[in-house]
Amino acid sequence: MAVYTHLTTEEIGQLLQHYDVGELRSAKGIAEGVSNSNWIVETTAARFILTIYEERTEREGLPFFLGLLDHLSAKGSPVPRTIHDRDGAAFREVRGKPVALIEYLPGVSLSHPDAAQAEAVGRALAQLHLDAADFAGRRANTLGPAQWQDMLHDCGDAQLAAIDAALAEAVERHLAPIVREWPQGLPSGIIHADLFPDNVLTLGQDVTGLIDFYFACDGMYAYDLAVTHAAWSFDAHGEYRAQIGAALLAGYHAVRPVSEEERAALPLLARGAAMRFIATRAHDWIHTPPDALVVRKDPMDFVRRLEFYTACGEDVFTLRDQA
Amino acid sequence: MAVYTHLTTEEIGQLLQHYDVGELRSAKGIAEGVSNSNWIVETTAARFILTIYEERTEREGLPFFLGLLDHLSAKGSPVPRTIHDRDGAAFREVRGKPVALIEYLPGVSLSHPDAAQAEAVGRALAQLHLDAADFAGRRANTLGPAQWQDMLHDCGDAQLAAIDAALAEAVERHLAPIVREWPQGLPSGIIHADLFPDNVLTLGQDVTGLIDFYFACDGMYAYDLAVTHAAWSFDAHGEYRAQIGAALLAGYHAVRPVSEEERAALPLLARGAAMRFIATRAHDWIHTPPDALVVRKDPMDFVRRLEFYTACGEDVFTLRDQA
Repeated sequence: MAVYTHLTTEEIGQLLQHYDVGELRSAKGIAEGVSNSNWIVETTAARFILTIYEERTEREGLPFFLGLLDHLSAKGSPVPRTIHDRDGAAFREVRGKPVALIEYLPGVSLSHPDAAQAEAVGRALAQLHLDAADFAGRRANTLGPAQWQDMLHDCGDAQLAAIDAALAEAVERHLAPIVREWPQGLPSGIIHADLFPDNVLTLGQDVTGLIDFYFACDGMYAYDLAVTHAAWSFDAHGEYRAQIGAALLAGYHAVRPVSEEERAALPLLARGAAMRFIATRAHDWIHTPPDALVVRKDPMDFVRRLEFYTACGEDVFTLRDQA
Repeated sequence: MAVYTHLTTEEIGQLLQHYDVGELRSAKGIAEGVSNSNWIVETTAARFILTIYEERTEREGLPFFLGLLDHLSAKGSPVPRTIHDRDGAAFREVRGKPVALIEYLPGVSLSHPDAAQAEAVGRALAQLHLDAADFAGRRANTLGPAQWQDMLHDCGDAQLAAIDAALAEAVERHLAPIVREWPQGLPSGIIHADLFPDNVLTLGQDVTGLIDFYFACDGMYAYDLAVTHAAWSFDAHGEYRAQIGAALLAGYHAVRPVSEEERAALPLLARGAAMRFIATRAHDWIHTPPDALVVRKDPMDFVRRLEFYTACGEDVFTLRDQA
């Protein structure tokens, strides 16, 4: 949760004068987004999400991120449009920081999805991969295996062990093999790379929104599927929910068939997905000042998923029509 | 800002089943409220504010606070209604904490009001005093002079001086005289007691919402006017905005005439209002753990207002038709 930059009502009102969106009626800071500040803004015309980008990496990627939203939205994906200003710009500047106005989508984020919802999420992810294939923008993945290695090396064994002895041990045991065996040449394109339940809006069984594309980049489709699997298929106690995982895979496969080569790589890709979140969470844990207005996420959640995928990955990643 | 209790979407959806408000379409935690957790909840019927009460004092006062909202709203004051559940209850319980659903009002909180807006706020405060006069509920002020003394004594000179030497000095010099001279017998009734710009919603020159009644209590009307004056009439640098202060008083006086006895007491009441916020802010400053997800407010803002009212109170609190 975060509202780092406190814009006044008057500043928001002035900003909206540059857009054809009616007059400001309400603006509330919302507790979403880890690295940017967000408001729900209501005008006489509609509602919007207003975002101020606080971090360098997000700012540099803005033309890519916002262009991708427009591309996907135009294709009919449930993705919020960027609202352009009267001069056609996708973002403006306020207090020296970039700011964008984005379509508000209905829907709620699930904490405990059912199988039909998981299947719908799998379908939506596959459709996103298909729809993004002809988007002209490109962005390298800045959180790939080389970066996990750098981040975890930067953390150091002692600090990892200070969080949890099992964390240091898991990194020591699993990192090198994952990096060494990391697949090359699987079908690739633009991936979301962070499709956690927080970033999916649903109404009943329908996916009404895929949001927060600020990790989107070039990558392997099967890796994105593995990230989504790791993000959705475990309950609050870390137990694997077999029906959810299977439904997610089946939904994806129904829209974009998973090749045998991709399927065979999924256990390793899922271990890599777990390592990616271990790396960023451990790094943030160690480098976040205890008085920061941010809730630190426990890297141990993904150590347990890493162990699960190591033990059971081959059993989990089967597909019905290939069994 | 705060969302202390993280309700899941599923919990919010289940809660709404007890109300006649349609189906859940969206729920976003908002960065408002210092001592409770708030969401904007949208259903197929309307939007609402959902509040979970985290603190004991608020919980005990809920029948009073929520009943007052209903009373004022029925009178036509721009105050959000409480939504009652199907059994007629004004609040329910979730995870052992009381929770209420409240009408969503349009409007924005101003950071830099103009004179017409300040006059409208003065009028709205006076109308609130008139409208609340026949409300049957009663609640003692738990933040009166006796409590400021207790809180500041509890802080101690050394800790006050550690925040700022001028803070300890101002308390030493001003607290005893304010308490000793505190007026008795002025016109009293139910007061808001915390009508800061954050708690007033406006559209253009119109006041569309008076919110956050969780300090409302029995008290002197002129004290409420003094609190509002202290909360509205200073700019971001702490400079007194004479036109704003005058417009606020004039607006109030036009709706509920201020007696000469009340006017004469206003300089002292304004010094007391400043001391009330010095006391709570200093107390919170000292007792808030540095890692709490709360922004601490600087008590020195109100030390400067206390000095201002001490020097200029007699000049500030004049009324046009009594000059």
